[in-house]
Amino acid sequence: MKDHIVSSFNEELKELAGRVVEMGGLAETLVHDAVSALLRQDRELATRTIAADRRLDNMQAELEELCISVIARRQPMASDLRDIIAAMRISNDLERVGDMAKNIAKRTLAIESEFNNKQLAVGVEHMSDLALEQLKAVLDAYTSGDLEVVQRVHLRDDEVDALYTSLFRQLLTYMMEDPRSITMCAHLLFCAKNIERIGDHATNIAENIYYMISGNQLPADRPKTDELADSSAV
Amino acid sequence: MKDHIVSSFNEELKELAGRVVEMGGLAETLVHDAVSALLRQDRELATRTIAADRRLDNMQAELEELCISVIARRQPMASDLRDIIAAMRISNDLERVGDMAKNIAKRTLAIESEFNNKQLAVGVEHMSDLALEQLKAVLDAYTSGDLEVVQRVHLRDDEVDALYTSLFRQLLTYMMEDPRSITMCAHLLFCAKNIERIGDHATNIAENIYYMISGNQLPADRPKTDELADSSAV
Repeated sequence: MKDHIVSSFNEELKELAGRVVEMGGLAETLVHDAVSALLRQDRELATRTIAADRRLDNMQAELEELCISVIARRQPMASDLRDIIAAMRISNDLERVGDMAKNIAKRTLAIESEFNNKQLAVGVEHMSDLALEQLKAVLDAYTSGDLEVVQRVHLRDDEVDALYTSLFRQLLTYMMEDPRSITMCAHLLFCAKNIERIGDHATNIAENIYYMISGNQLPADRPKTDELADSSAV
Repeated sequence: MKDHIVSSFNEELKELAGRVVEMGGLAETLVHDAVSALLRQDRELATRTIAADRRLDNMQAELEELCISVIARRQPMASDLRDIIAAMRISNDLERVGDMAKNIAKRTLAIESEFNNKQLAVGVEHMSDLALEQLKAVLDAYTSGDLEVVQRVHLRDDEVDALYTSLFRQLLTYMMEDPRSITMCAHLLFCAKNIERIGDHATNIAENIYYMISGNQLPADRPKTDELADSSAV
């Protein structure tokens, strides 16, 4: 059975890209809200963030279905196929960014004590600002096709990793000094790790945009792999 | 330019499935070795596990490329397309299982003190046995097409989650009792989380096999989502 109205292939590709951008906007909002909720101990915002993540999951499932249907109906070659595969991969990363935000929001609800350590709060905020900046930059580059931005994001991932490593050490010190803070700090360890992973997803997205536009893998053979490896051990 | 020898489409699908199975075998070995290295503080095995993960990454990249090339060359419809998409998704999960194993191995190298708490060791081992059992079961089901096994794996994910929650609490208690153990226990918290996530990947694989065989999503509307959500907050 054939549809009577068949939109053009180009329109379908535009539709896919539009949905990726929409998902990106929602993912950014979730991260921003989750970290705000954590820092202000705003349980209501945390609860809303958890609920909103489900929308991102649905958007991803729908986008993937659409991609598969486009591949099945059209016979996309070379660069068009790359666009579709990139859209699938990027939406996958964005869905996982949402999972990270949801996890931070859940931990906000689990932390019962006050988040009253100014130094830790500054560290978390600084790290999440940078991760969000990276995410925004790649999403803009997805629309603009600016490969320079893509490469810059790829190279800056180690800054997020360095902030994470420093925060990890701070949290351990704080736990040793005040054992009553151990439960809260354990949750913060995971929150910090989640933010670091958001940075990793931004880097993955950068790699996929580069592949989509150029048809090649990003040069420098993923320098991130080793740096990440180091930081992911803490 | 056309190849002179073009293997049949069926052979290509078999080749894809064979590669998924091979990746699965390597992923299992990596998890097993990483946890053994952690429990026995075997730095040499940890180092080998980290190196071996790179092979899994390469296998995944090659498999994905092959999938894309098959989609581009053939015009697979319905169930064949589902097979290919499932192979891509499952290989993605297996690659991430390898990342979890690598992370455990890296933490093994980071933990300098002796891992001498018998109770914690038993907890970690029990949890990883169950996660590995789940992974093995889905990989067997991928070959046999046994949907009952698939559904069982899907339902048992909350057992891994429950073990994780219990281990999380044990680790916090241990940290409070002995502040000198804080650094080691922080690494163990992440190791336990990694094992829990291996269980999640086994569940994802179960969902993908179900989709591949039946064309539908697993019934019960992913009960895991909420249970996981609860456990992932600790």
